[in-house]
Amino acid sequence: MIRMPAPDEAVLARRSEIVDALRRIVPGEGVIDSASERRAFECDGLTAYRQLPMVVVLPETTAQVSEILRYCHANRIKVVPRGAGTSLSGGALPLQDGILLGLGKFKRILEIDVENRCIVVQPGVTNLGISQAVQAQGLYYAPDPSSQIACTIGGNVAENSGGVHCLKYGLTTNNVLGVELVMMDGEIIRLGGKHFDASGYDLLGVLVGSEGMLGVVTEVTVRILPKPPGARALMIGFATIEGAGHCVAEVIATGIIPGGMEMMDHLAIEAAEAFVHAGYPLDAAALLIIELDGCAAEIDHLIAAVEAIASRHGATSCRASQSEAERLLFWAGRKAAFPAVGRLSPDYYCMDGTIPRRQIGTVLQRMEEMEAKYKLRVANVFHAGDGNLHPLILYDANRPGELQRAEDFGNDILRLCVEVGGVLTGEHGVGVEKRDLMGTMFNDSDLDQQTRLKCAFDSESLLNPGKVFPQLCRCAELGRVHVHAGNLRFPDLPRF
Amino acid sequence: MIRMPAPDEAVLARRSEIVDALRRIVPGEGVIDSASERRAFECDGLTAYRQLPMVVVLPETTAQVSEILRYCHANRIKVVPRGAGTSLSGGALPLQDGILLGLGKFKRILEIDVENRCIVVQPGVTNLGISQAVQAQGLYYAPDPSSQIACTIGGNVAENSGGVHCLKYGLTTNNVLGVELVMMDGEIIRLGGKHFDASGYDLLGVLVGSEGMLGVVTEVTVRILPKPPGARALMIGFATIEGAGHCVAEVIATGIIPGGMEMMDHLAIEAAEAFVHAGYPLDAAALLIIELDGCAAEIDHLIAAVEAIASRHGATSCRASQSEAERLLFWAGRKAAFPAVGRLSPDYYCMDGTIPRRQIGTVLQRMEEMEAKYKLRVANVFHAGDGNLHPLILYDANRPGELQRAEDFGNDILRLCVEVGGVLTGEHGVGVEKRDLMGTMFNDSDLDQQTRLKCAFDSESLLNPGKVFPQLCRCAELGRVHVHAGNLRFPDLPRF
Repeated sequence: MIRMPAPDEAVLARRSEIVDALRRIVPGEGVIDSASERRAFECDGLTAYRQLPMVVVLPETTAQVSEILRYCHANRIKVVPRGAGTSLSGGALPLQDGILLGLGKFKRILEIDVENRCIVVQPGVTNLGISQAVQAQGLYYAPDPSSQIACTIGGNVAENSGGVHCLKYGLTTNNVLGVELVMMDGEIIRLGGKHFDASGYDLLGVLVGSEGMLGVVTEVTVRILPKPPGARALMIGFATIEGAGHCVAEVIATGIIPGGMEMMDHLAIEAAEAFVHAGYPLDAAALLIIELDGCAAEIDHLIAAVEAIASRHGATSCRASQSEAERLLFWAGRKAAFPAVGRLSPDYYCMDGTIPRRQIGTVLQRMEEMEAKYKLRVANVFHAGDGNLHPLILYDANRPGELQRAEDFGNDILRLCVEVGGVLTGEHGVGVEKRDLMGTMFNDSDLDQQTRLKCAFDSESLLNPGKVFPQLCRCAELGRVHVHAGNLRFPDLPRF
Repeated sequence: MIRMPAPDEAVLARRSEIVDALRRIVPGEGVIDSASERRAFECDGLTAYRQLPMVVVLPETTAQVSEILRYCHANRIKVVPRGAGTSLSGGALPLQDGILLGLGKFKRILEIDVENRCIVVQPGVTNLGISQAVQAQGLYYAPDPSSQIACTIGGNVAENSGGVHCLKYGLTTNNVLGVELVMMDGEIIRLGGKHFDASGYDLLGVLVGSEGMLGVVTEVTVRILPKPPGARALMIGFATIEGAGHCVAEVIATGIIPGGMEMMDHLAIEAAEAFVHAGYPLDAAALLIIELDGCAAEIDHLIAAVEAIASRHGATSCRASQSEAERLLFWAGRKAAFPAVGRLSPDYYCMDGTIPRRQIGTVLQRMEEMEAKYKLRVANVFHAGDGNLHPLILYDANRPGELQRAEDFGNDILRLCVEVGGVLTGEHGVGVEKRDLMGTMFNDSDLDQQTRLKCAFDSESLLNPGKVFPQLCRCAELGRVHVHAGNLRFPDLPRF
């Protein structure tokens, strides 16, 4: 059960005045007032929670975003930014007394710069749209969340999105070079650029993954990569989860960084095989799909090395794709695993946590014990190379108490992740979903320091409040931002 | 000419009381009071500037660091942290009214974790010491600043240090997984860990490269990599700087990421060849040394590809190393280039700026024009793949006005870097050296936001003040860190 701040009645009372003010900033159909049209924005990918926003505004220019934020700042009105609304942690969940600021009209590709291997786009361009814009040049954008057809690069920046390829090519934060950012008071600043590194504090780094709480991104520069000359996939079955887990750890320890290294447990293998007939070994307790990319000679070398490791850890079957069609077939089962598992149960709840790789066997074992406790089944399909788990908890929302049991189960899994040295999220963000678990991972000193940083960007806590942090308004106590004003004169320093 | 804040006379008057307080925290010989012993700490690698610190303290435990900072915070005493003192930008330059906090006694390797491919060390361990600690397992730590024998990992974290291998393997910020950090008020927090990504804002990312101004690091976890199975170097001569610059841009645009890609201009080639006899082509206007690593088949494939690109851009000579001894010989000239250039002139000033790769030819051309204006010669030896320039300005400090001319020349080069879309630093940091140029790169909004972030960590500006930011004490004006304290109640949100 997730709680959100009580709405500010004084703001609600001024609703029509606020709508009028927004219409002066964004003329035409960019301000959505009617309840029926607002309903399209009432939830994101965390569909169990819904809230009609007070009003929706869809600006088209950075200047409009700046004016909207300046107005909201002056009038203390909360703002929830939104990309495509695919967040699985409720990052774009609206507020009853807040404006929903949609960036859906920021859809232009601004510049393709092949020599510097980067592209400049507006935040509403989809993740896949970036790769499509440069595919003629043999290039692509590496982070590839499962929602890449729909999710936007602005949302990817907010959530530090991942995907299968992030093991080798990094998360969003490793692929973003620069942004244009509108601060809550309307100021427009630029962070990073097309260059390598920068002077001063890494504001760009802190922005990526800040879940819409530090500012609104209105332009993004990302690096683009050449497609590898070739790729082949290995499909390896194991009699035990532990064996598969140890294989993953040893591949990484040996120094091989596959293009992707995914694991599925028995329930997921069964569901995927029934759905797409990829030829998965139905007798295996765990399946690894490991993709190796590069030139042909390098791939051959890596396949031999990975096969030897798998064999040492008790692999019961091992097949290497012999054609591009077969490689895609191996992946088809993995990519369809979520909908395939969805056929087993009326509803499922997709969790997201990360653990040290060598704990994979232990954690999956402990999850099996929890299944008995909560009387719910779990299928596991996840980014094994990153240690990024995605347990799918099967439940039926129509049975009283099952959603609550699924949530409690999910929370127990996340506590376990932290207990073994991991973290609460790998790529879905904290949002509202995991907010109240932040205390299991961070102590008060840690959270206070995070809050101080938040205040340095948005001192009134107007941007996406109620997300990520269980304590909302500690700024007033923490805000010891005062210096003795002397020492401004810079005398000469002796030089030798 | 660099200016520093005027000393606080009230603090200077309390010097002996402060020394006594520090001695109660760090017993024995950990507090250095005498002027002759303090002199060892009066400068770092930016040797043109010196300042005796008020007192030096060398703690041995995190608890002592915490107590020292808590005391300094309560008494408003400034603190300058220091690793090995190899900063080239004056990052560890002491303050007349400040404590120099040396981390030289934090020298222990705490844990080697091969399965998770990381190592936990104290901040006083040298950069090379980390690689040596894991070399028996075939592993190493990738970032490799030229000073790696002496510089410490704590200093690397503060400066986000680079090196030849950073083109392929990333800067310090891409290789640090976690730290233990003591805040200015003595609080101890942990950022990151051994895991991938984290929840909340990326405090670890903002800490790396913060030049000792956000907190004092007392423990560091970094990732370690397996040594590549093989490596060969190409030595390619060009008749023009432009040809070499275009070759660099095309190698990267093609998607090849060499293990290192370094450029030297004619003056540097001459000096290095005279010093180490590496067989460099003395008729070339520019030389590239490009290292390709991986398995043998991959290296052969990459060498052929790079040779073809070089030939298209007018290479006049091209040799691939045929043995490990020859590979090391190719590098010997590059590695000795700084001392080799040092033999041409009584003094040299090593600059550090970064530009988009395709601007290399233009910028080196403009630098030649500046040589005439300033009547000083420049040798160029630099990380071409990163666009990270290191012009060495030759001067004689004993000739009146030459140091000033060299500094002015250096500042003009940095302004040029920014003008073509680059930045003020690649790996040396801003420190005091480039502080007064920050305004050429950032506008007031940008700098204000950086300052707000600083205030969120160190609201009294006690940690390493006078470094990086030209405006020291804007916190008081900027510190709008107040929230309306309501909205703390979290009512249930309707659920569907």
